[in-house]
Amino acid sequence: MPELRKDPITGRWIIIATERAKRPTDFITEDQPMQASFCPFCEGNEDKTPPEIIAYRDKGSRPNSPGWRVRVVPNKFPALKIEGSLNKRGEGIYDKMNGIGAHEVIIETPRHEISLTALDDAHVQEILWAYRDRLIDLKKDARFVYGMIFKNVGLAAGASLEHTHSQLIATPTIPKAVFEEMRGAEAFYNYRGRCIFCDMIQQEIESEDRVVFNFNNFIAFTPFAARFPFETWILPKRHNSNFENLQKLGIEELASILKGVLLKLEKALDYPPYNYVIHTGPFDRSDLSYYHWHIEIIPRLTKVAGFEWGTDFYINPVPPENAAQFLREIKLEDTPVRNIGVSEKQ
Amino acid sequence: MPELRKDPITGRWIIIATERAKRPTDFITEDQPMQASFCPFCEGNEDKTPPEIIAYRDKGSRPNSPGWRVRVVPNKFPALKIEGSLNKRGEGIYDKMNGIGAHEVIIETPRHEISLTALDDAHVQEILWAYRDRLIDLKKDARFVYGMIFKNVGLAAGASLEHTHSQLIATPTIPKAVFEEMRGAEAFYNYRGRCIFCDMIQQEIESEDRVVFNFNNFIAFTPFAARFPFETWILPKRHNSNFENLQKLGIEELASILKGVLLKLEKALDYPPYNYVIHTGPFDRSDLSYYHWHIEIIPRLTKVAGFEWGTDFYINPVPPENAAQFLREIKLEDTPVRNIGVSEKQ
Repeated sequence: MPELRKDPITGRWIIIATERAKRPTDFITEDQPMQASFCPFCEGNEDKTPPEIIAYRDKGSRPNSPGWRVRVVPNKFPALKIEGSLNKRGEGIYDKMNGIGAHEVIIETPRHEISLTALDDAHVQEILWAYRDRLIDLKKDARFVYGMIFKNVGLAAGASLEHTHSQLIATPTIPKAVFEEMRGAEAFYNYRGRCIFCDMIQQEIESEDRVVFNFNNFIAFTPFAARFPFETWILPKRHNSNFENLQKLGIEELASILKGVLLKLEKALDYPPYNYVIHTGPFDRSDLSYYHWHIEIIPRLTKVAGFEWGTDFYINPVPPENAAQFLREIKLEDTPVRNIGVSEKQ
Repeated sequence: MPELRKDPITGRWIIIATERAKRPTDFITEDQPMQASFCPFCEGNEDKTPPEIIAYRDKGSRPNSPGWRVRVVPNKFPALKIEGSLNKRGEGIYDKMNGIGAHEVIIETPRHEISLTALDDAHVQEILWAYRDRLIDLKKDARFVYGMIFKNVGLAAGASLEHTHSQLIATPTIPKAVFEEMRGAEAFYNYRGRCIFCDMIQQEIESEDRVVFNFNNFIAFTPFAARFPFETWILPKRHNSNFENLQKLGIEELASILKGVLLKLEKALDYPPYNYVIHTGPFDRSDLSYYHWHIEIIPRLTKVAGFEWGTDFYINPVPPENAAQFLREIKLEDTPVRNIGVSEKQ
């Protein structure tokens, strides 16, 4: 059973993966490139993953067999275990609990594509529906308080398989990064009575300097204090704290803007390794007035060194205004249909 | 002039390095291996660095010429600029200031050594004296509130030159990572009236499970909630909030335990890339009752992926108890002289 342990100084929770514990020699060999020879995510290899949790399938196809478009399975090497109780307990001054949680893989296509951008818009929408369906289902489990959806693309971004996929980890504690955002946003709300994300959106639309796409209902911009070169955020323009509140029209536009940003990053940076994460409200609330769900897309272009680990300062060699301008100027052959904003004006 | 920008949600400060701003194409080429052909840190190449700030020299040798043992110079490509005023100002809802700060390089030896462990104990002591001297000097500059000493070893840990060296960055804000530690430690102190680091040391000595070295005045252990495999902390056993309070006997023992831990990590992990950072109290205090200076050593063995960025959760595949046991069992030919603790008992 993996263990969740709390750093008593900062409150950060850590997962100690006791069952996949490694010996020092495991780290000495260099990283192997990703295997392309056999892919457990490709159609026809459904028996090489744990049985599916949900799949969007063609009529008449059977579970765990071909005929699916998007398929969600448990991670074969989960960071947290789904069965068991939390058994929260102390060890002297320290706090720990069993490493209970869900760790799922969203296989985005039966074809061996290495980028989500190879999929058509309707297909990307189904991926977003799968995110939403899984969050709504996992909310029902009283042991979990948070669901984090994320995507790793490329070896340098932590991906171990190249077939395009996302992951979801449901945790029994609110992750520190989200808790900090919530705490900061709540303080702003208490002081000004407004959502700080809504204020940011307002200012970004007015200044235009950092805007990549300005759609009807979504905006993509490079944040003022971007930690990383070409870091880009996507937010719904209308206040909403939780991703799973998305409705059909929202999913359609989000698919278009997400694919549009990723296409521009791929063109600008020649298919960079990247991560994206969805920051949404915790499971027990769906209507926070001070929090605003969003997607953070982080190309992995720079190395994090001692200074960053030691300080949580980041040194970003690309001003977000320059990154946004560069991304705006990238022409897409397949221009997203709802792009009505600043990138079209130029 | 680089800019310091504050994330309005989390309060994290970012350095936007406007002067070394990069174009997207700068990121497309793969990392180049470190050049070994010419080294600006080697003796005889003193004119290839900015003029030295301090150097410990043999009698009769002249500044910026051979004859030094440890040499501190400004970083040729500083993240922050030393000249100018902060000019704190707003931009709508955002806050920023000029990127003022000191960025120095501590060249640890005139010989082209790639590891601090190649140096004898007396030489390592001089490196620590240089850290202390620079902190004490930079404290006098009213623009700076914090000095962070750190070390990057190996390409994967962000080093660009292999000649063994450390760096110091003095900043006009308290780095978020340290601020969080201070806030957490202060809350503990307010509740229990004790330093949480002192409590941790007490518990680690009693349990012995995570202890690597237990010297007279210093302890090295793998923390209970270690984020990374083989992460190891070194702390003074007697309460002290600031590194620069170290006296001669402390420097001698610290040199020995630091070199000992690094030797063990090098043996265990075959010269891994690593970072270390010194977390110390801010410049305007030197006697905090709730904070306790320490060194965090982080071998860079695992990749940080979307989940970690999105959550600030970390998945550590090596329980710190296993790491500590493994490190205890590593035999050093050149056993540190003051090792009188648990690693000797076994």
